[in-house]
Amino acid sequence: MAQGAMRAVVIREPGPPQVLEVREVPRPEPGPGEIRVQVAGSGINRADLLQRRGAYPAPPGWPQDIPGLEYSGVVEAVGPGVSLWRPGDAVMGLVGGGGYAEAVVVDEREALAVPRGMDPVEAAAFPEAWLTAWDAMVVQMGLSAGETVLIHAVGSGVGTAALQIARALGARTLGTSRTPAKLRKAEDLGLDVALDGGDAPWPDAVRDATDGRGVDVVVDLVGGPYVPGNLASVAERGRIVVVGVPGGTRADVDLRALMRRRASLTGTVLRARPREEKIALARDAARRLVPLVERAGLRPVTDRVFPPEQAPDAHEVMEANLNFGTLSIVWT
Amino acid sequence: MAQGAMRAVVIREPGPPQVLEVREVPRPEPGPGEIRVQVAGSGINRADLLQRRGAYPAPPGWPQDIPGLEYSGVVEAVGPGVSLWRPGDAVMGLVGGGGYAEAVVVDEREALAVPRGMDPVEAAAFPEAWLTAWDAMVVQMGLSAGETVLIHAVGSGVGTAALQIARALGARTLGTSRTPAKLRKAEDLGLDVALDGGDAPWPDAVRDATDGRGVDVVVDLVGGPYVPGNLASVAERGRIVVVGVPGGTRADVDLRALMRRRASLTGTVLRARPREEKIALARDAARRLVPLVERAGLRPVTDRVFPPEQAPDAHEVMEANLNFGTLSIVWT
Repeated sequence: MAQGAMRAVVIREPGPPQVLEVREVPRPEPGPGEIRVQVAGSGINRADLLQRRGAYPAPPGWPQDIPGLEYSGVVEAVGPGVSLWRPGDAVMGLVGGGGYAEAVVVDEREALAVPRGMDPVEAAAFPEAWLTAWDAMVVQMGLSAGETVLIHAVGSGVGTAALQIARALGARTLGTSRTPAKLRKAEDLGLDVALDGGDAPWPDAVRDATDGRGVDVVVDLVGGPYVPGNLASVAERGRIVVVGVPGGTRADVDLRALMRRRASLTGTVLRARPREEKIALARDAARRLVPLVERAGLRPVTDRVFPPEQAPDAHEVMEANLNFGTLSIVWT
Repeated sequence: MAQGAMRAVVIREPGPPQVLEVREVPRPEPGPGEIRVQVAGSGINRADLLQRRGAYPAPPGWPQDIPGLEYSGVVEAVGPGVSLWRPGDAVMGLVGGGGYAEAVVVDEREALAVPRGMDPVEAAAFPEAWLTAWDAMVVQMGLSAGETVLIHAVGSGVGTAALQIARALGARTLGTSRTPAKLRKAEDLGLDVALDGGDAPWPDAVRDATDGRGVDVVVDLVGGPYVPGNLASVAERGRIVVVGVPGGTRADVDLRALMRRRASLTGTVLRARPREEKIALARDAARRLVPLVERAGLRPVTDRVFPPEQAPDAHEVMEANLNFGTLSIVWT
């Protein structure tokens, strides 16, 4: 490979998984306050599938033709004025795009130390799911020890992260999934009450499991049809946060129930935020989440890793919903 | 009148306004930490009409047959251990029931000083509307200087209170009403942008009036049909609080819009709260709202006062929606 070049998985044109191909592209240089990370693993997310099909462009300022929202690796170069990191530090983090590459350049404040004891490639599955769960459930909804949380799609990447964080900070966990095997795996991760998210009346089961009180927080990764049940499931001053809407984007809300319970329904996304907010989230996670993960020995749930040439296969596996846990590209 | 007796407006039986009658009832005695207030004015609220018809019973621990959620007056007796008040102090506050009486007994911590310069009877129109507006808009939604708020039904009691509070703390105000005359009166109170809440597309007007950005907070006193417009009207991280739903209790919510804007929809009620929360709200209002009202010279919007014997007339006026501002009973 030429000096100053690197390999990356590039979207040749909008289309099916086969439009992904490995190419040599210029190796980016870190500017003031930036670090270049030699990437060990690139996490794969559903948003990448949308971006590959041309339906979800990267925000301005990020590579448009290289997908990838998260990375783990080792700092290999620092720009002027960098103070948080030195070459050789193991880091991970979110990017607005360009994560499927041998190197990424990021603002030093957006990087997080890889938690002690976590495998460098495994860490590639951490940032997107865990920062999403941390931000929605803890930073925004304020879940705290002694409270109860209901997590929908508890077997998903964000769901398993939310579950583990909730347990580590002393909350009681209820979770739904339409797949019995995913519920069993979630129970292995410590889920207290596993609920069938299919046709069964899970709101009744939530009431039963909470002595009629309801839950303090709902982390909803399903959306639409679950919202009325969420409202029926929350305790007084319950907080519902909608993180994903694969189940549907419209919800019928009973305002009288919302008022009677003094409940709230909040929507959230990470990717579209201004950089300052992303930096604030990363610094908060560095200060509070990473130590929690280290102390409790938490790990992202990973499924398989692929070499970059097999990125199309990885997208096919995710598109067919065959994975439990995260898929990653490895660059070694 | 017999020693230890007082007059009160009593609900003879559930029914029309004529079931209200003035009777002699025992004058209540203050217990430890309680004060007895000689009532100057008793504010009349829509909830009283519901209670009179038997549809909205008072919470446990409050008189069931005497309506009235707010009072103003003068402390005439203090129970053991009272430290905040002395006989002769001018106070006002919320009660769970029993407000239509010559005297009320309340926990000393639930009472507020009548703001300097406010007429003692006028103050009877303050607690319910202003504490509702303060709690929903400022305590819960965190409206602050430089932000923009949209207030629906801006000519109502809570609407005019929210409008005046928002202006006093340095926020920009937009308001809707279906009644042009109420919009004009709201403009006299300082409303910055008056919007037709009828069939006109007020969400478009909100966008135009905010350079396309939208508002930071919505105080919704209408409900149902306004919720989609609220979502279209909020800025990033906008907060919508639903305080009343006379327009309808069901709302169709576009979760994708909620997520994209990272907006929240919260319901609130005052009356059903645990006493501890009501006390906390009263103490916060004493510390922050009353000084703001005094500094800015704010006043509740009052319409007419009635002697207790005319309580049926007062209910008829409110039932026919003929008042702009609050109606009160006076006990002098």
